[in-house]
Amino acid sequence: MTSERIQREQAVAPFFIGVDVGGTNIKIGVVDDNGNSIARTSIPTEEECGAEAAMQRSQVAIAALLSESQLTFDDVAAVGLGTPGSMDIPQGLILEPPNMPSWRYFPLRDCLGELCGKPVGFANDANAAAYGEYWVGSGRQFNSMVMFTLGTGVGGGIILDGVSLDGTHSFGSELGHIIVDSSLEARLCVWGGGQGQLEAYASAPAVAARASDLLASGHMSSLSGRIAKGEELTSLMLFEEAEQGDELAHEVIIETARLLGVGIVSVVHAVDPEAIILGGAMNFGGTATATGRMFLDRVREEFQARAYHVVRDSVTIDYAILGGHAGYIGAAGIGRTMYQRIDQ
Amino acid sequence: MTSERIQREQAVAPFFIGVDVGGTNIKIGVVDDNGNSIARTSIPTEEECGAEAAMQRSQVAIAALLSESQLTFDDVAAVGLGTPGSMDIPQGLILEPPNMPSWRYFPLRDCLGELCGKPVGFANDANAAAYGEYWVGSGRQFNSMVMFTLGTGVGGGIILDGVSLDGTHSFGSELGHIIVDSSLEARLCVWGGGQGQLEAYASAPAVAARASDLLASGHMSSLSGRIAKGEELTSLMLFEEAEQGDELAHEVIIETARLLGVGIVSVVHAVDPEAIILGGAMNFGGTATATGRMFLDRVREEFQARAYHVVRDSVTIDYAILGGHAGYIGAAGIGRTMYQRIDQ
Repeated sequence: MTSERIQREQAVAPFFIGVDVGGTNIKIGVVDDNGNSIARTSIPTEEECGAEAAMQRSQVAIAALLSESQLTFDDVAAVGLGTPGSMDIPQGLILEPPNMPSWRYFPLRDCLGELCGKPVGFANDANAAAYGEYWVGSGRQFNSMVMFTLGTGVGGGIILDGVSLDGTHSFGSELGHIIVDSSLEARLCVWGGGQGQLEAYASAPAVAARASDLLASGHMSSLSGRIAKGEELTSLMLFEEAEQGDELAHEVIIETARLLGVGIVSVVHAVDPEAIILGGAMNFGGTATATGRMFLDRVREEFQARAYHVVRDSVTIDYAILGGHAGYIGAAGIGRTMYQRIDQ
Repeated sequence: MTSERIQREQAVAPFFIGVDVGGTNIKIGVVDDNGNSIARTSIPTEEECGAEAAMQRSQVAIAALLSESQLTFDDVAAVGLGTPGSMDIPQGLILEPPNMPSWRYFPLRDCLGELCGKPVGFANDANAAAYGEYWVGSGRQFNSMVMFTLGTGVGGGIILDGVSLDGTHSFGSELGHIIVDSSLEARLCVWGGGQGQLEAYASAPAVAARASDLLASGHMSSLSGRIAKGEELTSLMLFEEAEQGDELAHEVIIETARLLGVGIVSVVHAVDPEAIILGGAMNFGGTATATGRMFLDRVREEFQARAYHVVRDSVTIDYAILGGHAGYIGAAGIGRTMYQRIDQ
């Protein structure tokens, strides 16, 4: 580090802004140089109003967050922006994000950069979340890690020696598309393609769909009573009934763990990370519940039963800890790595 | 590049030595700065005489090769060494290579380095072969590529922006262990573990074993006549009979292509390379034969049927072109990248 750099850092520790765009909400946070989230907010995406309007409202929200933190844009070294794929990371474009038709082919990165007057790091939302866990979350003691995000879909992030594996077509780390069932009877992803891919088994809608199929084929379950009362069958309901001892719910969760374990084995044998981190909303309560602990145990067992002995006992598998904060913290962190590169 | 560096390179173009250790033979080559193999030899591994003796004989063979090329060790900038796994790349150790029990935990890299008086780059043999194809073979026009080597086993190499993905435990790019069949009836690898892994389907012994099972279950084939004459059923025999129109041989090769395609889809969705290169001895004659072309077409079809649309049409799938030279050329290339790092 140059002496000028040290002087400047002593004078003003840099802050970073993380922006995590989702189909419903945009999460925004101010993050310090150590990855602490010092202020955060969430604004509606309002997809139908277009990408430019969303970036303008994001800039207003950032200014308000900074003001409430007694900071200004002068204290901000860089911004990080995570968005759903597909995207063109080198060009800063969002391409064809699901459920956001009016945003297609919009130059999101440069738009936000001009509005904020800052350099903007750009990443896939799942890779940004993985970077967040890598920087200050479950992965902070590892040099390389792979994160699976289980939610509406299955996303992934691969961080090797501090670098997000974005890939040639900005499609790296798309771990929901790993094939875990190659048989002709394998399930299709909810979006219609991708037979036998992890997303067809380990996303929240896929888990609910599998439970629904078992009910339709006559299996008994406490789920039936709730559905009869008009409740929608969701992965959350499945978790709640599993906690109450329902056998069918339990079995669906075990099968989810088995197929996630299969996917983990394939990824580990390709990129050989130190750790696998399981994030996303569908964590069955995480380590705080019996079902969450059982799910994690089953994933680990499947991995150990199938992995080559060199990696079998040396890869850590654990839950993420940053929850919904991982995306904007990680985006801020990716902005920070870009700032460090520019600054050196 | 510094002006001193340019002067020195103009004075003496550097040469590199590549050493590719196999269970039966050690291939050694002198490679110039452009990846041209200017001299090469092969010596028996003589595993039973131990690793140190093999490195001593390798040094003698290198000296002879240099002499015949009118070069000396002074013209050599670095050596590259590829060996079968498992290994510890940072420490330079060979750990537990299959079929080489007396070599276990030997400091192979430093032994060869001291014998030659040169820095030695160290790599898994399949990663070295991948680097060879990346440097001057089928992958030379790509920034990132993945190679599958189909032979006695199934190996792999992943090269991203010129760097071999060695992994945390020197177990990266072990693509033979990707799971392509997660069913309870999936085949076991020949080495006894790894149910449903690619190696259990796409290695030469696995292909022969699958054909053998079909024959045992009563399928008709021209293979039966050759086996009755005392010939051993091999992947080469399968290829020859497929060329002659045998339906069973054809079907086994199609199924091999299907499951290799499944494995390719998983890897592409993890690391998103520009190209997939198929190397190793089991290429069914490559593009020179109808069977080889059919195999490649089927692999491509399976990939396109299953890959996400973003990568479906943008990933090149092709055969390797360096054959048995890929390993030592790639090892030399990995020695060269280390030399460049030291020299900068």
